[in-house]
Amino acid sequence: MSTYTAVAHTNIALIKYWGKKDPQLIIPYNSSLSLTLDQFYTKTTVTPATTDQFTLDAQPITGPGLTKMTAFLDILRAYAKTDQKLAVTSTNHVPTAAGLASSASGLAALTVAATAALGLNLPKQTLSRLARRGSGSACRSIYGGFVEWQKGQTDEDSYGVPLNPAETTDLDIAMIALVISDTAKTVSSRQGMANTVATSPFYPAFVQRCEADLTAIKAAIAAKDLQQVGEIAEANALKMHATMLAATPPFSYFLPETLQAIAAIQQLRTQGYLCYFTMDAGPNIKIICAASQSQRIAQALKKLLPKVAMVIAKPGPGAKLI
Amino acid sequence: MSTYTAVAHTNIALIKYWGKKDPQLIIPYNSSLSLTLDQFYTKTTVTPATTDQFTLDAQPITGPGLTKMTAFLDILRAYAKTDQKLAVTSTNHVPTAAGLASSASGLAALTVAATAALGLNLPKQTLSRLARRGSGSACRSIYGGFVEWQKGQTDEDSYGVPLNPAETTDLDIAMIALVISDTAKTVSSRQGMANTVATSPFYPAFVQRCEADLTAIKAAIAAKDLQQVGEIAEANALKMHATMLAATPPFSYFLPETLQAIAAIQQLRTQGYLCYFTMDAGPNIKIICAASQSQRIAQALKKLLPKVAMVIAKPGPGAKLI
Repeated sequence: MSTYTAVAHTNIALIKYWGKKDPQLIIPYNSSLSLTLDQFYTKTTVTPATTDQFTLDAQPITGPGLTKMTAFLDILRAYAKTDQKLAVTSTNHVPTAAGLASSASGLAALTVAATAALGLNLPKQTLSRLARRGSGSACRSIYGGFVEWQKGQTDEDSYGVPLNPAETTDLDIAMIALVISDTAKTVSSRQGMANTVATSPFYPAFVQRCEADLTAIKAAIAAKDLQQVGEIAEANALKMHATMLAATPPFSYFLPETLQAIAAIQQLRTQGYLCYFTMDAGPNIKIICAASQSQRIAQALKKLLPKVAMVIAKPGPGAKLI
Repeated sequence: MSTYTAVAHTNIALIKYWGKKDPQLIIPYNSSLSLTLDQFYTKTTVTPATTDQFTLDAQPITGPGLTKMTAFLDILRAYAKTDQKLAVTSTNHVPTAAGLASSASGLAALTVAATAALGLNLPKQTLSRLARRGSGSACRSIYGGFVEWQKGQTDEDSYGVPLNPAETTDLDIAMIALVISDTAKTVSSRQGMANTVATSPFYPAFVQRCEADLTAIKAAIAAKDLQQVGEIAEANALKMHATMLAATPPFSYFLPETLQAIAAIQQLRTQGYLCYFTMDAGPNIKIICAASQSQRIAQALKKLLPKVAMVIAKPGPGAKLI
């Protein structure tokens, strides 16, 4: 047992994960599909220690943050059949406060580094399902490019699976992250999805449509039809946000500036730019477009949204030890 | 047969009408409930003439507007068993461009004046179902105060029914209309609801929830529980708008300024003001509050939304000849 460092990149879902069928094991109601991005990642170093310790972005973490970390390390220790305590040092590399420092890259990097530090050498599928226990979407950040989180039914069969690279590696795709707001969200993803599952009358239809959208977007990716990919992803994201408006109490992650950004994207589309958006549990917008057009689209958008910071990201690699 | 003039007031739905089961007869998928308002009305004069003519807000109307008018007058003429042509002069009385010049007050006033000009003296229930054929929500403007549009199943049994006045006339209620934008909407109500019915996977659950919301709000009105009335109405409106986000293609009536107004209302609530909102097929917001607090709420809101024009409206009367 010695020190290991891993890097994992964040991923953005094109078909959304929004609701846990099993909140303990983090088994989702529907399968989802994401793109891992090159610009946003977490680097995590894990060292055997006498007590669990956690430093995030150079800040020592205590209280609930450390308790949550220890609970996840306990899952990894149970798997490794060891009591070894660990010191975790983690840094999020996000160019600006882009609302993209998601738990996905963090838990994926931690899983890779900590399992190595506990003496394990695990296949990616096992890393993916262990990462899932820390944060559902982290199971997708174990892999690069397009990744399907196959919902499964048990702890053993719910994990990420990369789409066939032969079908996807030459797809001309990028995402432009728009920084609408960097203030903390009022409803966490975890609370938001639990509230939606429990109270939204639209949730069952959303789950059903996600399965249909997943089949359709995989066909569009295989056909390299970026317009179809964008249309399906945008509609899927709006359906997810619609479930929240129907929850009790209703809630929403839309800010006025979010709608301004959406209107700007729709305006670019009428001008012939191929660009679509997706949006997660926060006000920020991610544009789906061709990598070859991303600079031009970002420039055109900058004229409509002069105050909004933008980061162009391309498909990124899977999590790995460095 | 001679000249008749009628006045009808607009109504705002607390439980929404959004979708026609029978587009020809305008039979809705669910029953709805509205409040007729005193501040916004249409005054319409109808005179026997040699050809159908239509003047709206002092402008002679030709083309599709006149064709639509003639088609509705044909329905009334068929009922009256006459071929008499009519000259219609209509004026919308809306204090500002409030986006409240709805077709409801217009078609209700027209029905009352035109049936009289055709020599009929009809009970309100018949006026209500005839007005429905011109514009669904017009069937509610035949009556004052709270009105339920009982969906029915046929042309004969789909009409407005006023709630028991004994239960409602002393309810301390008002609406504050916020003028967010007076630009024409991009998707008409008619197109919007047809698109939602045809494509939104959330529509069946919406219809189901409307029936439950209707039962609940009638109980809240009877109990004079304004907070419950507001909560149910606000959640019902958001569910309606959520169905549109899930349509193919998705669409929305929210503008950035709509979200700013909603945030301001939510802020007033945290300060102890009892105020809720509803929203129809356009970006404007109507606040539901106690009439006795409406001035105070409008003043507090004016500080948060200095550019937004506001009109306080109280329960208004039913349509009648003057």
